[in-house]
Amino acid sequence: MSEQDDREQTKARRHRERQQRLKEKVDAKIAAATEERGVLLVLTGNGKGKSTAGFGTVARAVGHGKRAAVVQFIKGAWECGERNLLEPAGVPFFVMRTGFTWETQNKEQDIAAAEQTWADAERLLADPAIDLVLLDELTYMLSYHYLDLERVLSALKHRPAHQHVVITGRACHRALIELADTVSEVQPVKHAFEAGIKAQPGFDY
Amino acid sequence: MSEQDDREQTKARRHRERQQRLKEKVDAKIAAATEERGVLLVLTGNGKGKSTAGFGTVARAVGHGKRAAVVQFIKGAWECGERNLLEPAGVPFFVMRTGFTWETQNKEQDIAAAEQTWADAERLLADPAIDLVLLDELTYMLSYHYLDLERVLSALKHRPAHQHVVITGRACHRALIELADTVSEVQPVKHAFEAGIKAQPGFDY
Repeated sequence: MSEQDDREQTKARRHRERQQRLKEKVDAKIAAATEERGVLLVLTGNGKGKSTAGFGTVARAVGHGKRAAVVQFIKGAWECGERNLLEPAGVPFFVMRTGFTWETQNKEQDIAAAEQTWADAERLLADPAIDLVLLDELTYMLSYHYLDLERVLSALKHRPAHQHVVITGRACHRALIELADTVSEVQPVKHAFEAGIKAQPGFDY
Repeated sequence: MSEQDDREQTKARRHRERQQRLKEKVDAKIAAATEERGVLLVLTGNGKGKSTAGFGTVARAVGHGKRAAVVQFIKGAWECGERNLLEPAGVPFFVMRTGFTWETQNKEQDIAAAEQTWADAERLLADPAIDLVLLDELTYMLSYHYLDLERVLSALKHRPAHQHVVITGRACHRALIELADTVSEVQPVKHAFEAGIKAQPGFDY
């Protein structure tokens, strides 16, 4: 065997050993996690992908025959592509009856709309037939003091044990982060916007 | 008018003014971004939500009547919930014929499988009828040197001008980050795993 073949074989063996150690680590972690219960997932931060990941989770749940529901707290006048696919697949949508909050400039009206929509969320969070609830852009309702924090926390804490919840939005309140099981912070590294590329249907909304 | 009413009114006025300034900023940004073209979006980092955001983008595109396709470079034995929903909705799936890379421990076999799957990706990236291509978990193929970086960059650079591409996976290669229009880094704040909660169908896969 040439010296080069020998080096190649050693390299290949080391690669297999590294993969084996990685596999053992992953297997041990999987074996240690045995509890099955509803997960509270928070997707926060200023980067693109939070709501999209929320809707992706809904698509995944529906694909597994689970019952999912969507509550949208901030929604522009734009048509929502996900809704066109998911609503006919049996996912009910509850949408706050006001545009982007910074377009209404009427705090009382926003608060009333937020509370009405939260009442829809509360019904879903009390319904054991619902496997997954997406609370899209909920975080702003707390940053703007449109919803009472204790009321929100209480509904989340008392939901059915198997029910998953996904909360999206920037600057998530610390109390929600603490309550959550999984939290991802989506940070913007760069955005097409800055390069002059406009938001496009079927990609950005 | 009482002093308290006065204070409340001032507070409400200031709120409206803040919202107005925010709206003006957003409007100015939107007006400045006028170019319409395919966006290369990279979702990287170690947090939960990258692939889910990728599939959410596919769901959004399909909801708008766009043609999307999915290429999955790493895929366990688990059933994929998104596929059950998206494939019947007309989204073709191309899945690399090997399990999680750290379960195969055969570098030559992994490289052959990666190259075969990349050939599928190349066909999609050359097809102007496809509006969106999701390259799920592509980043690992570059970190493990399973695919040639120049070959990957070339197909991305020469794709149809209107075609959007989403790339997901940890530790994305710097050259892809540079080429991308939008990059989000999904960072884990905490994960249910660590609290002993197991991965559950319809939520984690």
